[in-house]
This record gives sequence, C-alpha cells and structure tokens, in this order.
Amino acid sequence: MSTFRDTVEANFQRLQDNICHSLEALDGEGEFREDLWSRPQGGGGRTRIIQGATIEKGGVNFSSVHGEVTAEMSRSLLIDGKTFFATGVSIVLHPRSPMTPIIHMNVRYFEMDDGATWWFGGGIDLTPHYVHGGLAAKFHSHLQGCCDRHDSEYYPRFKAWADDYFYIKHRSETRGIGGIFFDHLGKHGDLDRDAIFRFVLDVGDTFVPAYSEQMRETKDLAYGERQQDWQAHRRGRYAEFNLVWDRGTKFGLFSGGRTESILMSLPPQAKWTYDHPVEAGSEEERTLSLLKKGIDWSKAE
Amino acid sequence: MSTFRDTVEANFQRLQDNICHSLEALDGEGEFREDLWSRPQGGGGRTRIIQGATIEKGGVNFSSVHGEVTAEMSRSLLIDGKTFFATGVSIVLHPRSPMTPIIHMNVRYFEMDDGATWWFGGGIDLTPHYVHGGLAAKFHSHLQGCCDRHDSEYYPRFKAWADDYFYIKHRSETRGIGGIFFDHLGKHGDLDRDAIFRFVLDVGDTFVPAYSEQMRETKDLAYGERQQDWQAHRRGRYAEFNLVWDRGTKFGLFSGGRTESILMSLPPQAKWTYDHPVEAGSEEERTLSLLKKGIDWSKAE
Repeated sequence: MSTFRDTVEANFQRLQDNICHSLEALDGEGEFREDLWSRPQGGGGRTRIIQGATIEKGGVNFSSVHGEVTAEMSRSLLIDGKTFFATGVSIVLHPRSPMTPIIHMNVRYFEMDDGATWWFGGGIDLTPHYVHGGLAAKFHSHLQGCCDRHDSEYYPRFKAWADDYFYIKHRSETRGIGGIFFDHLGKHGDLDRDAIFRFVLDVGDTFVPAYSEQMRETKDLAYGERQQDWQAHRRGRYAEFNLVWDRGTKFGLFSGGRTESILMSLPPQAKWTYDHPVEAGSEEERTLSLLKKGIDWSKAE
Repeated sequence: MSTFRDTVEANFQRLQDNICHSLEALDGEGEFREDLWSRPQGGGGRTRIIQGATIEKGGVNFSSVHGEVTAEMSRSLLIDGKTFFATGVSIVLHPRSPMTPIIHMNVRYFEMDDGATWWFGGGIDLTPHYVHGGLAAKFHSHLQGCCDRHDSEYYPRFKAWADDYFYIKHRSETRGIGGIFFDHLGKHGDLDRDAIFRFVLDVGDTFVPAYSEQMRETKDLAYGERQQDWQAHRRGRYAEFNLVWDRGTKFGLFSGGRTESILMSLPPQAKWTYDHPVEAGSEEERTLSLLKKGIDWSKAE
C-alpha cells in the first residue's frame, strides 16, 4: 500500500515532467539535461537544467531527502525533531532578455519524526529586471485565481507573506514584484491534508500559464547594452538574496544537499558596481521605486 | 587623555591612508574615491573605492562602530554582552588580470561592555585564479616573516586557522591559497594588549609588500578569453564564500552597517555555469586540485 509520502513524491515528479515538457516547447531550442543524484545520508533527486534560446539558464529540480536533523539544520530552519523527510520541486529560470522577468517556484512537503508532524510550503514569485505594472497585474491575477479556487483568504495572506519573505533586508528592497509564499501549512493540525495537497498541486500547475504569458508579452521587446548591464546588476541582487537570506538555499547547503542542484538558482552572470548610479527619471529608477512591500498589483497598469 | 580605543582608531586610519597611497602608486591610473558615512546607532566609517587600470575594483575601508548587541548579532557572531565597540580596516582587491590574485586583508579591534572584554582579530589571504606554487610560497613567506617577528608559534597556528576559516564548505574547497587568520586574541586575559596591537599593525604593514610582489610578478603574463572566463567563475566562488560563510560580512549586514561599504568585497562581475566543465590536465584542473587545506606552501614551486 502506498503511503501519503509516496503519493506526494509521485505527483511532484509528474509536475516536474509536465513543466519540463512545457518549457522545452516554449523555449523552442533548449532541451533539459538530467542529472540523477543520491544523498549519502538518505534520498536523492532529479536535477534538470536547460540552457536554451529564450531561457539562458534554468533549473527544474525534484528532490526527496530524509535523515537526521543536524544542529545546523535546526538552527537555520527553526525546526524541532530528530528525523526529517522533505520532498519538493524547485524552479528558477533566468531568461536571456532583460525585458523578461526571472521566475521562481517551489512546492514542498515536510515530515518530522516519521509523520508525527507534517506540513506543506511553497510559493511563486516574479523578479522583473524592469517592472511593468500591467504585466505584474497579470501575473498576480493567475496567483489569485489559483488561491481563490481553494480559500478566499489565501491570496491576501500569502501575497503579504511573499512581500515579507522575498525581501532583501540589507538593501531595503523586495526581490521583485512578489507573488505568493506559504509555509508550515497544516503543521498545527487545523487543516485537511488532502485539501492542502490539492492546493499545492494547483500552485504547481499555475506556473506554466503564469510564466508563459510573461514570456509571450515580453519576447519581442527590443533591448541593448544598457538593459543588459542593468539585468546583470539585478542578477547580482538575486544572488545576494539567495545566498544571504533564502531559507531553501540554506536548508539545502546545510543539510548536505547537492551543491550544483541547489545553486542552479544563481544567475549565469552578474555584476556588482560600487554605489551603482541610476539616472533620474529613467526606467531603472522607476523599477527601484517599485521594489516595495504592500503594493496592490491588481490595480497597476 | 586619549583612550586605547582612540589610539587604535588613529593607527587604523593611518594604516588606511598609507595603503591607499601605495595602491594608487602601484595601479598607476586609478584614484580612490572616499565616502564618509555614519551609522544611526553609533559610529561610522571612511569607505574608499578604486576602479583602476590594474585593480578593476577594490575597496580599502576604515570603520569604527558601537552600540547595543542585537539578538541577530550575538547569534551570528557568537558574542555575549550588551554593548560593543568595533574598529577595523578591511580590504578586498579584484585585479583586472586573471593571472593576478584577489587579495583580502582585515585587522580589527573589539570591545564588549565598555572594555570589560576586548580582543583583536585579523588576517590576510590570497585567492589566485590560477594557483602558482612559487608565488604562493613568496606570499606565505611575507606572512611568516611578519608572524615570526612577534611569536614563533603565530605562523603555524594562524596559517592553519586561515585554512579552516577561508573554506567554502558547500564546495569542499578553500577560497584560495590561504594566508593567516586569527580572532579573539587577548580575550582570555593571557596576552599583553600593546604587544598584540604591535603585531596587528605589523600585519597591516605587510599587506603592501606582500601584494605588490604578486602584482609585479604577474602583470606581464598573457591571458585571453579562456582565462577571463575562468576568472569570472572563480569570482563566483568568491561571492559565495562572502555571502554564505564570511562572519565579517554577516556582522556588517546584521549590525546595520553600510551595505555598499560591506559588499565592496563582491567582484565587479561573476559567472555561474551548472556543473562547470574543467578540461583534464589543464591549468584550471590543477588549480582546483590545490584548493585544499594543509598544504605547506613554503615548499611549493
């Protein structure tokens, strides 16, 4: 008889397959390369990487790991318990065009001490190099649609959570226009496990329609060296967030995960310029002014 | 009457001045730009940045900060106490040529609770994009000479400490060929404060002769796109170390320091390629094989 863990794993693998097929079709040229890996302490994963025409560098990873909770893990992740099980799908895509946003998605299921405690987490967020209000509204509309199919309280709550989570504290700026983020769903025994699981899979299925629209609407926009230089600097901020603040990255690195799989999220290239100047009244300055918490993107144009 | 703090501050400022003058002369074209800053919670600094002919991006920073110890600080820095005072000089230079190493130096003085506890820390370490045994031996010879002028036990102890500290755990590789690192010197009341201070200033004065030799010996070496591409990938590793592991960077970011001053250590540009291939028998592969702890560089050729 299959356990709930098995069901989650099988569904997350199917999600990975579906997303990879869709992204290959969208890219038009690139094909995913797959690396299977196993973790000495237990479990492993399927890392899939694409270097394509539209997607300069992207990863769509599945993993399922288990083992003992180390001191480093409990400190960095604020978790109690002796043993853990964690499975999830993680995606980061860095597009070639500076006019197309970076996207991230993650869905995950955790169990502590053989299921004594369990929870789901996840999220999708968008990091445009240039913020465009109308496109941000479209992106959030997909997420709100997904949330509303399950619980009308989810979107406002998870949207605010994303604003707080995807925040580069040392820069006082959000990573991008946010999206949704949630964690520890079901941990307190107050929610139906199957219902949360359906929601989490729906989040996964929202990824392709939400991002393919962004790609379609930005793919013909012209750009030059100025925009590429700005993209490289924004990619630097993306690296800062992931390496300094992201709990998923820390969990991976501190739990003995596979470094190349975890750090697939880093951009193909990045720049750092001291006190990088931004021209008054420029699109770059406008973008910086919009990297704030609490913006209601549904009204943006 | 001036306090010991004042004496340390004045000497660290003089050290910053001397190093900046020497580096401008060595670079030949670049001049330092200075930004004075103050910290709302107490103290401030003099950030000096150079973008030159030989030095593509470099910072030589002085700071002196004080205030209350936050929970984040005590957790990330493993310090006890209510108030702190910290002053130091920090340097990172990213040279334009991939044949010239990246260098880092730091000297610092800490007091907790108005001098109830105090200590010195510091270090110098070298990160060649291509490791050359003979040049590594010359670099370590400067450091050993400095250490031996003060205590014959310093060099072996601080060399091993640097191997452990400048270690990229998630890559299982050292940042470069190491150097010396020391912390909490004098904290246990077992050492003479003036004697340690003289040693720390001597470390500061060793920076210019040690690095100018590296510059001189590598400045005429030819390089092309292959070496620049490798440099960009090594710079990526440098960013990983600083953002994930470096306690100085964390102290700065978590104590409300000035982000642009702290992150001057990041390279002007970096690259990340998934599972970056390295040719068998190449100089790049040879360099990777030498990024290990415990190598006795004095015997290297």
